Amino acid sequence: MGDVFESTDSVRTARPLKYAQHATFHEPLELELGGRLPEVTVAFETYGRLNARRDNAVLICHALSGDSHVARHDADDDPGWWDVLVGPGKPIDTDRYFVISPNCLGGCRGTTGPDSLNPTTGQPYATDFPVVTVGDIVDVQRRLVDHLGIKRLRAVIGGSLGGHMTLTWATRLPERVAGAIAVATSARLTSQALAFDVVGRNAILRDPAYHEGRYYDQDHGPNVGLAIARMLGHITYLSRESMMQKFDAERLKPRNVRTQFETKFAVGSYLAYQADRFGERFDANSYLTLSMAIDLFDLGDTPEKLTAVLEQSSCRWLLMSFTSDWLFPPFQSREIVNALIASGRPVSYCNVESDCGHDAFLLPNQIGVYGELIRAFLANLVNGDCPNFRLSENGTVPLAASATPPSPLQVPTSPADTSIFQHRRLDYDTILDLIPPGASVLDLGCGTGELLARLRDRGHRQVMGIEWDEQAIVACVRRGLDVVQTDLNKGLAAFADGQFDIVVLSQTLQAVLDAPRVLHDMLRVGRRGIVSFPNVAYRKMRAELAQQGRAPRVHAEYGFQWHNTPYVRSLSISDFEEFCRQQGFKICQQVALDTEANAPVHNDPNLNADVAVMVLSM
Amino acid sequence: MGDVFESTDSVRTARPLKYAQHATFHEPLELELGGRLPEVTVAFETYGRLNARRDNAVLICHALSGDSHVARHDADDDPGWWDVLVGPGKPIDTDRYFVISPNCLGGCRGTTGPDSLNPTTGQPYATDFPVVTVGDIVDVQRRLVDHLGIKRLRAVIGGSLGGHMTLTWATRLPERVAGAIAVATSARLTSQALAFDVVGRNAILRDPAYHEGRYYDQDHGPNVGLAIARMLGHITYLSRESMMQKFDAERLKPRNVRTQFETKFAVGSYLAYQADRFGERFDANSYLTLSMAIDLFDLGDTPEKLTAVLEQSSCRWLLMSFTSDWLFPPFQSREIVNALIASGRPVSYCNVESDCGHDAFLLPNQIGVYGELIRAFLANLVNGDCPNFRLSENGTVPLAASATPPSPLQVPTSPADTSIFQHRRLDYDTILDLIPPGASVLDLGCGTGELLARLRDRGHRQVMGIEWDEQAIVACVRRGLDVVQTDLNKGLAAFADGQFDIVVLSQTLQAVLDAPRVLHDMLRVGRRGIVSFPNVAYRKMRAELAQQGRAPRVHAEYGFQWHNTPYVRSLSISDFEEFCRQQGFKICQQVALDTEANAPVHNDPNLNADVAVMVLSM
Repeated sequence: MGDVFESTDSVRTARPLKYAQHATFHEPLELELGGRLPEVTVAFETYGRLNARRDNAVLICHALSGDSHVARHDADDDPGWWDVLVGPGKPIDTDRYFVISPNCLGGCRGTTGPDSLNPTTGQPYATDFPVVTVGDIVDVQRRLVDHLGIKRLRAVIGGSLGGHMTLTWATRLPERVAGAIAVATSARLTSQALAFDVVGRNAILRDPAYHEGRYYDQDHGPNVGLAIARMLGHITYLSRESMMQKFDAERLKPRNVRTQFETKFAVGSYLAYQADRFGERFDANSYLTLSMAIDLFDLGDTPEKLTAVLEQSSCRWLLMSFTSDWLFPPFQSREIVNALIASGRPVSYCNVESDCGHDAFLLPNQIGVYGELIRAFLANLVNGDCPNFRLSENGTVPLAASATPPSPLQVPTSPADTSIFQHRRLDYDTILDLIPPGASVLDLGCGTGELLARLRDRGHRQVMGIEWDEQAIVACVRRGLDVVQTDLNKGLAAFADGQFDIVVLSQTLQAVLDAPRVLHDMLRVGRRGIVSFPNVAYRKMRAELAQQGRAPRVHAEYGFQWHNTPYVRSLSISDFEEFCRQQGFKICQQVALDTEANAPVHNDPNLNADVAVMVLSM
Repeated sequence: MGDVFESTDSVRTARPLKYAQHATFHEPLELELGGRLPEVTVAFETYGRLNARRDNAVLICHALSGDSHVARHDADDDPGWWDVLVGPGKPIDTDRYFVISPNCLGGCRGTTGPDSLNPTTGQPYATDFPVVTVGDIVDVQRRLVDHLGIKRLRAVIGGSLGGHMTLTWATRLPERVAGAIAVATSARLTSQALAFDVVGRNAILRDPAYHEGRYYDQDHGPNVGLAIARMLGHITYLSRESMMQKFDAERLKPRNVRTQFETKFAVGSYLAYQADRFGERFDANSYLTLSMAIDLFDLGDTPEKLTAVLEQSSCRWLLMSFTSDWLFPPFQSREIVNALIASGRPVSYCNVESDCGHDAFLLPNQIGVYGELIRAFLANLVNGDCPNFRLSENGTVPLAASATPPSPLQVPTSPADTSIFQHRRLDYDTILDLIPPGASVLDLGCGTGELLARLRDRGHRQVMGIEWDEQAIVACVRRGLDVVQTDLNKGLAAFADGQFDIVVLSQTLQAVLDAPRVLHDMLRVGRRGIVSFPNVAYRKMRAELAQQGRAPRVHAEYGFQWHNTPYVRSLSISDFEEFCRQQGFKICQQVALDTEANAPVHNDPNLNADVAVMVLSM
């Protein structure tokens, strides 16, 4: 049980945050659901230097129990809650970006919240503190960004509740955000997640020590209720798998902790310890306030409503979820991605493979994927001026001495680029020739984005990829491409009819189980589809079967045999032609290739070509 | 929100159970973890009549919040908690079986528990009530079964905690149980499920109204803590999907309930209502006692330990889990099944497709699958005498007037039997011929069990099937066969080396992605493997490719084309022979068939046979 007390939070004593700055805004804050605050103070920390163009600022939004201390300021500093991500040379590189990390409205670490003194009474607000929405939290953050003299943020980033803030920035203040990175979040909670919050609040509200919220002059607040809520929350942040790894082996060997909670089981001693520590640093009224803000957050309960909201955004988007996150399950990120696709907004998405649950976004385990995606996405953001927007006050932040322009990101040669699919080049050349100049293109199974990058270099402005492989997705984002992780067998429902001029399915048809669905979808989404596939009736393969009695092998040169090939479908050009007739697809153009001879085939393609490229329409 | 207050529990007022009988045992009960009870009373209900041979008794074990009232006794009676399953003509048919349903030790509905009077003090036991294990609960149930004069139960059945009791009956009292049906249960809780229990107990124990357990003479007990525990439990009984269906659409429209808990959200009003009702009928000390019994239950934390325990059993087994159950997730049932397989015990298993979560086992939604599996399993159980076992007292239950012998269960002709695979018959005949008399046989992809049933009819005593399709599994259990739901691509790790004489893979190889793994596993588990597959080099298919340029189509007569065939692999006899040489498999015997001509092929099988049957060994 060596690591049982490793916390995924930055558990610190409640002493004041050493590096926190404070800004107080005396203009009253009118709240979205009614009520007002006569003034608001924001505690925040900054990292790195604002450049001369004031265009390298990244705003970080914390989750329920976070605060402004996102990262260490120096080696002696306390750990920050996102040290894995933020710092010199790290994915959010403080040598390149000016990082702003405020404590949020309603919190209890320096920003105005229920434990702050109400200037009109001189007493803590307690339950006089109004109901706060994510919109209100963002409104206060906007005041801070104004105060810092920043017109437009390079990016806003946050996970969980911080993701809700990110979504709100991008949709309510689109002119202020060049890039939005929303991690492990949702457009609204699931009813399951909401129910856990309700139980946690009930535990606090019905704790006799809650004293209707006015416990600040008592010996103690609703520590038991807050601890129950925290224990419950903690379970939901972990995955079943990670709890198994931590606690299964020595279930009945609890660590000896001083607590009034049950410690019969190892997991109980862990939860008791975490909950007791949480009570030392967190205010129960803040917990109630922020958990209610999460529960009230709702960008829309239908795809249509969600799309209408996300259409307000004008930034580039990166969304990430984690496969084992059951509190903000991946399908919820996917709902946001689908709505962004439907509104034609540039978006990349990856559902990162992880067994760490919701906490994954705070942990080093998958930083190689989610951190690299963030690094690559940030590096490719262009923070242009927003001509229609003017700051009301001048900037107050000292600028960096020498503001260097961002250097173009090095795109390393991905192993996949030199992979078995190098033979595709002739295929790619052909496909490139078949795509009209300037056409918008969606590439299904885009790999590391080679075809899309070539199109972009040729001047195509709207290109997008669909891919399954995590590392290929990272490579695409490094190239500055928009790519969304999708299982092609599940179709392209997110895309609108005719959303692209051309949809490409290059050497992927034979690996897809439900080819009719994919082909119908591509011809619904694209005005034209371009399909390339290996022809099983190529003369060599005919001979293999007819003369040697061996099943035709596609790409045998790569060691693919009947039992280990990634291809689950085999078809000839004639098969495909018949299929198109049956389905009512029109073959507008057909190019047959002999890739061994590196030449097009004009005579009897079904016999002489090993690869066919077809342009289809409905 | 019309159905929001439908409860999956049998929410009743706490008035005494009208049909409950009571048996008091004056011999002291020594408890497994120390302590003793001077006497024990058991409340129980019975349904149906015990037959003359006293061999038709079925014991039903309830879960945490259940009681003896498993089903209505008549039309005017209150609903029972398992009415969907128990009654005349229902899957546990009270016209055929004598059903016994006791309230369990530690409960609060008539059986001795913490709220019972301690005869030595005249006061409620309260916290003097000893720690009770599932073993103790079963020990008391055994006394009741003895008292009823039943040597050997036709079956013990239970879900959740009731499943823990079932597992304990079958392993500690093997001579008393012919069949064990364990539903939505586990060998031990996951650490996640355990953690939820810990939080619930903490809420009760730290409620000031708990009064260290001695609240029976107070105005009220720890109602808030018990309600928090119940709300939490309730969330874990539902699935995310079922909560979405119930609460997502009208999230902010709570029902108007009289409660002191938060009712801002629909799901909150639901949880508050359920929790308040629960507090009216359930005792907090019973909740603590039974949840601790669940948490302490542990049949073994490694496959080896679990196997050693399950080896003690001598009954037939049926296990079922539900795909969306995250409290007792399917992999935990599978662990039990794997251990039973490893110990060579007869077992059937199905992971029933459901979106109802843990509660699925109480609901009508999937009764067509789990109910029919139970009905079929019970009908095929033989409750023979246990020669070495003698009851200590005579039976006390009046027997049914005319004890009719159970009629053999009608096996309806399954649609799958008359399906596209009728052509398999020649294939099957050949395979039957190749299996030595009396051999033990495992059939991978056994379908509705036709081959296995023919083997059993031929006198083979140890035959077993692996299948994926739910309805095919029901058909197998109806035939009285043992069948375990398994995805063949995940291998046969549960089976021991050489566990069967013969392992059959009939017309399934071409549908499996990872053929090498499956074939290696079959030759590890069986002394011999028998594989049949379609030969893609059959002359008709060679001609199709060579002359018409069409991809070879296996079973084109069923409409299978390149894009819709269930087959993802195609191979010829020569391909397979080469593969066997590469892998070091020995082809002991080979039969080639022309199923169109309905004849064996002796001349050039790779050209003239459409199906090959091979006997392999390592």
